[in-house]
Amino acid sequence: MPLAEKKLIQQIRRSARGGKSVVIGIGDDCAVLRVPPGHELLVTTDFTLEKVHFRRDWHRPELVGRRCLTRGLSDIAAMGGEPRAAFLSLAVPSDVPQKWVRRFLKGLLDLAAEFKLPLAGGDTAQSAGGGGIQADIVVVGSVPKGKAVLRSGAKAGEGIYVTGELGGSAAELARLAEATPVGAESLRHIWRFSGQSRPQARVAAGQWLRQHRVASAMIDLSDGLSTDLEHICKESHVGAEIEAEAIPRAQAGPGKKRVALELALHGGDDYELLFTSAAVVPSHIAGARVTRIGHTTPSAGMRLIGPDGKKRPLHAGGWEHFKGDS
Amino acid sequence: MPLAEKKLIQQIRRSARGGKSVVIGIGDDCAVLRVPPGHELLVTTDFTLEKVHFRRDWHRPELVGRRCLTRGLSDIAAMGGEPRAAFLSLAVPSDVPQKWVRRFLKGLLDLAAEFKLPLAGGDTAQSAGGGGIQADIVVVGSVPKGKAVLRSGAKAGEGIYVTGELGGSAAELARLAEATPVGAESLRHIWRFSGQSRPQARVAAGQWLRQHRVASAMIDLSDGLSTDLEHICKESHVGAEIEAEAIPRAQAGPGKKRVALELALHGGDDYELLFTSAAVVPSHIAGARVTRIGHTTPSAGMRLIGPDGKKRPLHAGGWEHFKGDS
Repeated sequence: MPLAEKKLIQQIRRSARGGKSVVIGIGDDCAVLRVPPGHELLVTTDFTLEKVHFRRDWHRPELVGRRCLTRGLSDIAAMGGEPRAAFLSLAVPSDVPQKWVRRFLKGLLDLAAEFKLPLAGGDTAQSAGGGGIQADIVVVGSVPKGKAVLRSGAKAGEGIYVTGELGGSAAELARLAEATPVGAESLRHIWRFSGQSRPQARVAAGQWLRQHRVASAMIDLSDGLSTDLEHICKESHVGAEIEAEAIPRAQAGPGKKRVALELALHGGDDYELLFTSAAVVPSHIAGARVTRIGHTTPSAGMRLIGPDGKKRPLHAGGWEHFKGDS
Repeated sequence: MPLAEKKLIQQIRRSARGGKSVVIGIGDDCAVLRVPPGHELLVTTDFTLEKVHFRRDWHRPELVGRRCLTRGLSDIAAMGGEPRAAFLSLAVPSDVPQKWVRRFLKGLLDLAAEFKLPLAGGDTAQSAGGGGIQADIVVVGSVPKGKAVLRSGAKAGEGIYVTGELGGSAAELARLAEATPVGAESLRHIWRFSGQSRPQARVAAGQWLRQHRVASAMIDLSDGLSTDLEHICKESHVGAEIEAEAIPRAQAGPGKKRVALELALHGGDDYELLFTSAAVVPSHIAGARVTRIGHTTPSAGMRLIGPDGKKRPLHAGGWEHFKGDS
């Protein structure tokens, strides 16, 4: 085993914390987990790849680590589940400084600690040159049997809701792209004014929505509102009408301006929840603002209602992750 | 989403099969799994990285896929567990032909079918140029509560056993390294004569050893006998004496010669089981030959007993995966 890989494993082992669901953590052939009786298991895996999901010259390592775990937590939240344990597979080329890895792990583990989530295992490798940093996060959660909130439960005539505000992540990325090449000083400036620098998976809100049987269908906004709404429509065999003016747009940048509608509609990586409901929905759930943005329809397809009341077809124009070669 | 990534997802969805443990498979935010009442959960994750674990010009894609899943199954086997579902995260650069991916998936899914194991989810991405193919396999299994066979259960004075024969994979890799550069024709020749071209995780043997309480400690031989034995010794606070002549060495190559002792001692990727036992151990378990190769000792450290009866210190000299840059 290469020395750098050994160091990496030691680092992760030192940082990993136990938890009530973990019987055996890092250090055997498998982790052994205990799930409450009567619960089903939730499993989600998400890549975080350099030059695809992040750039080392754009993103602080702590934020990359935080986002890496947020992606998994957000999927558990979208089922109304309770996260139980995380597993990190991390491949690092030899030219990446140990300090980067330490800071990446700090971001990831600080977020895990907020959720009292143990890092129970994973894999490490020194990757081949040119490959960049490759992380794969697995989050295992649980939910009472038969109670997971699926994408397929929406019915026509229900309200469509989102938590939080949308488009902040996309706006931030657009600013970074404009500002490149930039010095470290101005990058720090950008981050300081970015409301999206600490994405927050809506785990508590997702659980509340499941426990109170408020959400009939749910998904997390990772690919963008238009794309993720289309997933719910297709899986539930309904259509949707969205009011452009109702979409809660993030304020971003030094001037705290509302982001463009396009970014709120199609931008990704917001990690808010999108759900449908026939019930009365509170304006705030577990600290998250909740906004009604439209309703489901019996006829298929998505439509956007403009300020003039006119309906235009809405297509999934979701997120294409930054590609280094384009 | 890039077109190639869409195609990849469609390919995996088409290939994936359901199973009795999978309530919701691919197509929602998380997979939903059901584990038998009274069972604990086993989770293992393993990278399979181009230029680290395989080379596209050396290894058939079907074999890369098969090995990818074997790594995870073998970890479940080493706990005495039952595999329940697999998750594949696969990042593929745009220059890799769809055919390679199809053949990789075929190898993986054929093996999954042998174990009636559903592919229940994962992630896909088009990776940045230069990164090579990156796969991360997660296997979730289960075992009756408290019954997982750990690395830490060995006591002094127990027998040390292995299933199957060792060193075949290392010998094959050595032949490939010698033979490069070679034409496709001679590569096929090498594969045809390679006993290791279809590695077989010892899932049934692992379960038998757990059910009959025969194994006190167990690990799978992925890093090589000397390295994996050291893991058992350290976790169990015992030492070990191994008889060189007793180690079952694979026959490899066109002449079916027994591989060198060094390869059987330190070569990796055999996916056999190494276990300790104070019980009477059958010579065959679930189709696998079982060989006693030594015993545990109260004093720490590992020793190799030569044909002359002399004891030499044995050090973990396990496997360093091929590194493309060396």
